[in-house]
Amino acid sequence: MLISSCIVLGGGGFLGTNLCRRLAGKGVHVRAFGRRCLFPHALDRVDWHAGDFSDSAALARAIEGHDIVFHLIHSKPANSTGLDLQEDLAQNVGSSLALLEICRKLGVKKIVFVSSGGTVYGAARQLPIPEDAPTNPIMGYGVSKLAIEKYLAVYEHLHGLCYRVLRLANPFGPFQLAVKGQGFIAHLISKALEDKPIEIWGDGSVIRDYIYVEDVIDSIEAAAADESDARIFNIGSGVGQSLNEVIAATERVLAKEIKREAQPHRAADVPASVLSINRAQEVLGWSPRTCFEDGLRLSVAWWQAYCKLP
Amino acid sequence: MLISSCIVLGGGGFLGTNLCRRLAGKGVHVRAFGRRCLFPHALDRVDWHAGDFSDSAALARAIEGHDIVFHLIHSKPANSTGLDLQEDLAQNVGSSLALLEICRKLGVKKIVFVSSGGTVYGAARQLPIPEDAPTNPIMGYGVSKLAIEKYLAVYEHLHGLCYRVLRLANPFGPFQLAVKGQGFIAHLISKALEDKPIEIWGDGSVIRDYIYVEDVIDSIEAAAADESDARIFNIGSGVGQSLNEVIAATERVLAKEIKREAQPHRAADVPASVLSINRAQEVLGWSPRTCFEDGLRLSVAWWQAYCKLP
Repeated sequence: MLISSCIVLGGGGFLGTNLCRRLAGKGVHVRAFGRRCLFPHALDRVDWHAGDFSDSAALARAIEGHDIVFHLIHSKPANSTGLDLQEDLAQNVGSSLALLEICRKLGVKKIVFVSSGGTVYGAARQLPIPEDAPTNPIMGYGVSKLAIEKYLAVYEHLHGLCYRVLRLANPFGPFQLAVKGQGFIAHLISKALEDKPIEIWGDGSVIRDYIYVEDVIDSIEAAAADESDARIFNIGSGVGQSLNEVIAATERVLAKEIKREAQPHRAADVPASVLSINRAQEVLGWSPRTCFEDGLRLSVAWWQAYCKLP
Repeated sequence: MLISSCIVLGGGGFLGTNLCRRLAGKGVHVRAFGRRCLFPHALDRVDWHAGDFSDSAALARAIEGHDIVFHLIHSKPANSTGLDLQEDLAQNVGSSLALLEICRKLGVKKIVFVSSGGTVYGAARQLPIPEDAPTNPIMGYGVSKLAIEKYLAVYEHLHGLCYRVLRLANPFGPFQLAVKGQGFIAHLISKALEDKPIEIWGDGSVIRDYIYVEDVIDSIEAAAADESDARIFNIGSGVGQSLNEVIAATERVLAKEIKREAQPHRAADVPASVLSINRAQEVLGWSPRTCFEDGLRLSVAWWQAYCKLP
C-alpha cells in the first residue's frame, strides 16, 4: 500500500514527531493530531491539528479524507504509579473505540496502532517473548493497550477495517523528553548532562529491550505497507539489557560517571522484557539497523543540540 | 474458605437468583444487588438492595461488611447485535474497575467473577478449548469480559485482592427468561410451548456447550472456596451440541415438533464453542452432574410452572 494521505494521532509527541518528519520528508501529505505539539519547528511541513483525543467530533474532522491512520496516542504514561485506571480506560480505550467507529464510517483503509510490548505480556515465562505468548499484564496500562488491540480485531472481523499492531519495546532517541514516567534513556541522558543522580527503582537488574526510534519508524512504515495475514508484530532490538548495563554504556558514551539514586522496587515492573522480533523480520522484512551505542550517541547529540535551543 | 457473608452483584437475574437461593438455603447471609429483581418471591430470604452497577456510592454501601463478592453483572446481553461498544465499556469494564477499587478499600476477601467462555476465546483453533488457549474475541462482549479478567489480575498483583474467574459456557435452567439476545434454550422452550417458530441464525449447525444452572452454581461455590494457585476456570458440560441437536432433544422432551424460522448467519457467532473442563474437575473437584435432557426436563417444568403464576 502506497501511503498517499495519512494522519498521525499523537503526532506532536516523541514517536509522532519522528514519524511525521520521516513521512513528510518523503513527500507524503501528513496531518498530525494531538493535544500538544512538543516540537512545532520540527513539524514545519506537517499539517498540525490541535485537538483532544476524547473529542470525537474534532477527531472525525481531522481524519476525514485520510486513508491511513497511525494511532500513537496514549494520554497517560506507561508507568505512572498513581494512574487512575478508570480515567485511563475512558480516555484511551473508550476514545479508541470512538476512533474505530469514525474510521469505519469514513472508510479509512488501515489503522496502524502502536501498542506496548513491555506491558501486554506481563511477567513472561519465555524470553525473548513471541507474539503468541500469554498476555497477562501486571499494570493497567498493559490492559488498556491489550483491550484496544482486541477491539481492532473485532472491528476487522465485523466491519472489515484493516489494521496492524506494533508491540513496541522501549523506544529511545531524538525528540524523547525526560517527562515523568517515560523514557528511561532520556532521563538518564538529561540527568547525566546536568550531573544529577538518576533514580533507579530496585537494584538495576531489571532487563529491558531498547530500540532506536528510527528503527521503530521503519517498522511503522513497513506495517502500513504490509499485506500479509499477520496483524501483531513485536518491535524491539531482540536483545535485553539491564538498567545497570544501559548506565554503563551511557557512561562510556559521555566519558563520565553517572550518579545513582536507589529507589524501592516497583510491583508493576516486570523483571525482564525482551521481545522476539522474528515475525517482523520474516513478514515485514524489517530489522533494527542501529546498534545500541550508536543510538545512544545520536540521542546524546540531539539532547545537547536541543538544550541549546532558545 | 467458609462463606459467612457475601453479596451477589446481579443477584436479581438468572444466575444470580439461582446462586442467592442456593446460598440462602444453606443459611448463609446473602445480600443481592442489582437494577432489577426478576423474581422477588424467589428471593424472600435474601437481603435485596436495588441499585445501579454504575453508581459506585450505592455499590460501596451495599458491599460494606461483606467478605465475598460474586460479580455476575453485565448490563447488556452477549449477542445483542446493536451493542454500543463504548457504552458497554463504560458500564461494564469501567464499573468493574470501580468495583475493584471499592473491594480493595473495604478489604473484601475474594471476588468471584463470571466471565464468558463462549466469547473470550473467539474462533477456537482447538476443541474443547482449554483455559490457556488464545483469547481473540470476535465480538465486543468478549473483549469487555476479558478486560475485566485482566484488571482482576492487576489488582491481585498490585494490591493482593484475591479472585477467581469462571468462564461459563451456555447456562440454562430455571429463572432464565426468553429475553432478547439471551438464553437460546429459554427461547426455544417458550416458543415451543406457545407453538411459535424459533429463530435460527444460520443453518443450525453452530455448536455450543450447554450447562445446567445448578451445575454452574456448584462451580461458583467451589470457586469461592478454592485456595489453589489457579485463577481461571472453564465451566461447561465439556460436550458440544448443534442447535439442531438441541431442538431435536427439546422435541423429544416435549413430544412435539418445533417450527423453525431461518435467519441469516451472524458474523459475531463463532462456529463452535466447547470448553475443556479438566482444570475445574482437577482443581475444584467439580463436575457437571445433570445430563442435558434432565436439565431440559427441569427447565420445561419450571417454565410451565412459571407461566401459570399470576
